[in-house]
Amino acid sequence: MRASQTLLATLRETPADAEVISHQLMLRAGMIRKLASGLYNWLPLGNRVLKKVERIIREEMDNAGALEVLMPVTQPIELWEETGRAVQYGPELLRFSDRHGRPFVLGPTHEEVITDLARHELQSYKQLPVNFYQVQTKFRDEIRPRFGVMRSREFIMKDAYSFHIDHASLEQTYQVMFDTYCRIFTRLGLNFRPVQADTGSIGGTGSHEFHVLADSGEDDIAFSDASDYAANVEMAEALAPNTPRANATQALETVATPTQTLCEEVAELLGVALTQIMKSVAVVAPVPVDADTLKANPTAQPGQRFFLLLLRADHELNEIKAAKLDGLKDMRLATGEEIQAALGCVPGFIGPVGVNVTVIADRSVATMSDFICGANRAGEHLSGVNFGRDLPEPIVADIRNVVAGDASPCGHGSLNIKRGIEVGHIFQLGQKYSAALGASVLGEGGKPVVMTMGCYGIGVTRVVASAIEQNYDDKGIIWPDAIAPYQIALVPMNWQKSQRIQTEATALYEQLKTAGFDVLMDDRNERPGVKFSDMELIGIPHRLVMGEKGLDAGTIEYKGRRDNESRDIPLADLMAFLQETVQA
Amino acid sequence: MRASQTLLATLRETPADAEVISHQLMLRAGMIRKLASGLYNWLPLGNRVLKKVERIIREEMDNAGALEVLMPVTQPIELWEETGRAVQYGPELLRFSDRHGRPFVLGPTHEEVITDLARHELQSYKQLPVNFYQVQTKFRDEIRPRFGVMRSREFIMKDAYSFHIDHASLEQTYQVMFDTYCRIFTRLGLNFRPVQADTGSIGGTGSHEFHVLADSGEDDIAFSDASDYAANVEMAEALAPNTPRANATQALETVATPTQTLCEEVAELLGVALTQIMKSVAVVAPVPVDADTLKANPTAQPGQRFFLLLLRADHELNEIKAAKLDGLKDMRLATGEEIQAALGCVPGFIGPVGVNVTVIADRSVATMSDFICGANRAGEHLSGVNFGRDLPEPIVADIRNVVAGDASPCGHGSLNIKRGIEVGHIFQLGQKYSAALGASVLGEGGKPVVMTMGCYGIGVTRVVASAIEQNYDDKGIIWPDAIAPYQIALVPMNWQKSQRIQTEATALYEQLKTAGFDVLMDDRNERPGVKFSDMELIGIPHRLVMGEKGLDAGTIEYKGRRDNESRDIPLADLMAFLQETVQA
Repeated sequence: MRASQTLLATLRETPADAEVISHQLMLRAGMIRKLASGLYNWLPLGNRVLKKVERIIREEMDNAGALEVLMPVTQPIELWEETGRAVQYGPELLRFSDRHGRPFVLGPTHEEVITDLARHELQSYKQLPVNFYQVQTKFRDEIRPRFGVMRSREFIMKDAYSFHIDHASLEQTYQVMFDTYCRIFTRLGLNFRPVQADTGSIGGTGSHEFHVLADSGEDDIAFSDASDYAANVEMAEALAPNTPRANATQALETVATPTQTLCEEVAELLGVALTQIMKSVAVVAPVPVDADTLKANPTAQPGQRFFLLLLRADHELNEIKAAKLDGLKDMRLATGEEIQAALGCVPGFIGPVGVNVTVIADRSVATMSDFICGANRAGEHLSGVNFGRDLPEPIVADIRNVVAGDASPCGHGSLNIKRGIEVGHIFQLGQKYSAALGASVLGEGGKPVVMTMGCYGIGVTRVVASAIEQNYDDKGIIWPDAIAPYQIALVPMNWQKSQRIQTEATALYEQLKTAGFDVLMDDRNERPGVKFSDMELIGIPHRLVMGEKGLDAGTIEYKGRRDNESRDIPLADLMAFLQETVQA
Repeated sequence: MRASQTLLATLRETPADAEVISHQLMLRAGMIRKLASGLYNWLPLGNRVLKKVERIIREEMDNAGALEVLMPVTQPIELWEETGRAVQYGPELLRFSDRHGRPFVLGPTHEEVITDLARHELQSYKQLPVNFYQVQTKFRDEIRPRFGVMRSREFIMKDAYSFHIDHASLEQTYQVMFDTYCRIFTRLGLNFRPVQADTGSIGGTGSHEFHVLADSGEDDIAFSDASDYAANVEMAEALAPNTPRANATQALETVATPTQTLCEEVAELLGVALTQIMKSVAVVAPVPVDADTLKANPTAQPGQRFFLLLLRADHELNEIKAAKLDGLKDMRLATGEEIQAALGCVPGFIGPVGVNVTVIADRSVATMSDFICGANRAGEHLSGVNFGRDLPEPIVADIRNVVAGDASPCGHGSLNIKRGIEVGHIFQLGQKYSAALGASVLGEGGKPVVMTMGCYGIGVTRVVASAIEQNYDDKGIIWPDAIAPYQIALVPMNWQKSQRIQTEATALYEQLKTAGFDVLMDDRNERPGVKFSDMELIGIPHRLVMGEKGLDAGTIEYKGRRDNESRDIPLADLMAFLQETVQA
């Protein structure tokens, strides 16, 4: 492409309302423009990246035996009522009525539509397994769209749905998709991690998220420095310390902490490490009414139960882990009044000694001795506290978030924690949708079998933004070769005035195109500085500068986007050099 | 692709609610499935065709220098209010509100969005001309969606919009798009005609429709048998007969036609040809209030004027042509009461002799002599009527539809008339949208110039249906090679039982794929008859049947989808034969 023939809509200033770097650079590089809140136009440069990402995803999905289909953006709400998600999905599900008053939704996802299709088109186990995918526009009515295309309302997803006769078949396809996603993100040139994910509210039995590692990510990812292990911080198991509890050496004492309600303040006042202080988190959980009671009294209301959860002061409670423990389903933090009622003390000074409530200690608390904790009296803490002497041995469980340096739960190495942007998600759905919609096939024995399903998503538009979050500097974007809008920027010096340069640059441009390179020749009537900074801002990974001196010497100047210095390449070696250097 | 690995959802029965052949065959071949009224899922087979059509369109648009972008499906209604189309577009424009109550539309087209983008991104005449295109989902809330994807509510369009400093530049790009469209439809393998179209209500100065010729088309296309001339029947000029009016030979007489109100009945009664009868069409048109009258009387109402339009009895009035004549803007057919009031006669017996209203004769009427027409008395006609003797010479104009056999208005040959399906439309928009939205650039003189625009659409999903309307037989679809879901069907006989066939067929399958052919190998456990009829229904243009007898003889059976007989090709010659036979 000649730069004069396309729309290079670069901006010098950083737009005021763009918070994250990818949003700023996509606007500045002229890749996208906002149409309305959460709605973006993709300009020619951005669209080229988008289409390259789509092509790589399609090639790998096809290679994995998935079948491409296309389902409508607009969907009848009846299907969402059949699965119960018309209610569950909440206000992100955009509803509208057609001219006849019939209700529809703008599809935020396509489980309902594909399962409806499958229940009509699949009759026999012989047709299974089958994996359908599409690359399609989705709409989620985010309450506060932000970060450009990272969290927009209209976006493009690759979504796939597989159908199986049993769970074993699902697991096979799941593994194929896992491997396919690894190939896709590798080909896209991204530094990513597949991480174990919580299966959350969708239900199902297994799930991995694919995260692009970037400081701006919204998720914390824990991963081993010695293995492939990676998990969302919420999901990573915190192992018990491998050193046993030390013997008690101190006597139990009361210490005055008149205004010190935070552990950090107590540690400073007493001159001890945070690891020597234990914090108590008060929570309450509903106690369901049992069947007998409900029989006797149909209007009986659920009660609630009070718990103290004990953590080392430098650790954080993991509410997802805690909520999975017996009796703690649907737990929440206790209010000040509930704490006063249960412990007779204001928050800030509470502790597990001498209390009449259930106490659950994190694994790392269970090995503490001679520790400090609240005294259940305002303005006082206890020091030299020891389990088995000053209070009973607690129930022990993993209830904290892992931290950097923790032993990896895989048994190899220790954990690093980095921020990640979720760009893909694979999920063993099981029979949630197929059961709700009655999607069965005849099994080998001739009886109907409800199909087992998996689903596999990639946020296509989000991939583009996340690639920038991971690859930029103060000059602009640095595209991975595979998804760069152009692989090579050819900048001819003195283009306007030199007939020789025009002839030679045009000849090289044609030669590069013929060799299969994606080239942008900057033939604009601009100063070299403007051209250089535009090519850097746009992020073209390889730059050639053609000047008359170089032509005299039979060379051309090359600079990789991450290089500090340029170098002269003999024109005779140029094609071989580029074939070696530019990644297909 | 192995047939066992994809979804071949063929149906034996023709679905009851599918009226046109393309809809029937797309359902029967398993290309599409209905999700709701006017909403279709594209199954793997249909999606392959769709993607091939898209790829050809993209390649040609890119070659023509157009820049691909992507604009949202959802659009803020404010832009439609700026151009006035929020009201004009009517109920096909689907409106909805987001969770904050802000009004949006589902885009049926993108003039507003692209012009908004252009007014922000284009600043100088130096950036012009520029032509943006996208391949994107559209939504039109048709009151009665039908004919499958031919007239669905959600569909895919390639839409392009060009921006220019002046009309001369628009005309250049318009010509490039005209040529590009011809290349696209030729590559798609369609028998098509570019036809001059009425610019209608969109406004603008030039327009061509691209029609795929097919008996099921909704439009009548007139085209020369001796040149490239083609036009919508509504648009084609009807030339004056090239023979002068014959001299009067008969006397004016009144003939009794007691019950004969139709020209056909009069012709039968009197034993004359229809071409000897003249019919009179009564119309009225509003007479606007002139400025002076309105000044004197601000509540003055427009009046109306009565006209008689004269046509040969075998011709049809063309209301579009008539409405362009002086005084006939917004004309309509007169009511029985209006006819009675103006002519003192009931409809069925009216005529131009002795009347006091404006009479306009079609060109072919102007050369009639000794003709028959209504007498303006119930139950009577006049015969031997002659202009200049029995009534004044009329105003003469072209007010009829052309008919087959008319001289072509291009001056070469005579006209054929065929039915066509509109699959593309190119349009010189002028400044309609750029003026409404204030899309200006600085011109060469430094002053703002409102940009001139063109727009260029192709109905991508409709192209698929129209290709079938043009290419089918009683066995099913007959795809043009370029857009067939697979180019070659490889049917191995006795696949289940013969290890030799499995080995040889698989080897050939791999060889064909390596040579770049798109092959479907039917490895299903089905009888040969089922496989043959499925491959014919699906419309694969080239079929190879591998059997053991053939292998013994070193041959394979080939049959083109349009061939009556199969023939044996020596295996040694097969690749060369296919490279010759299969169109890329």
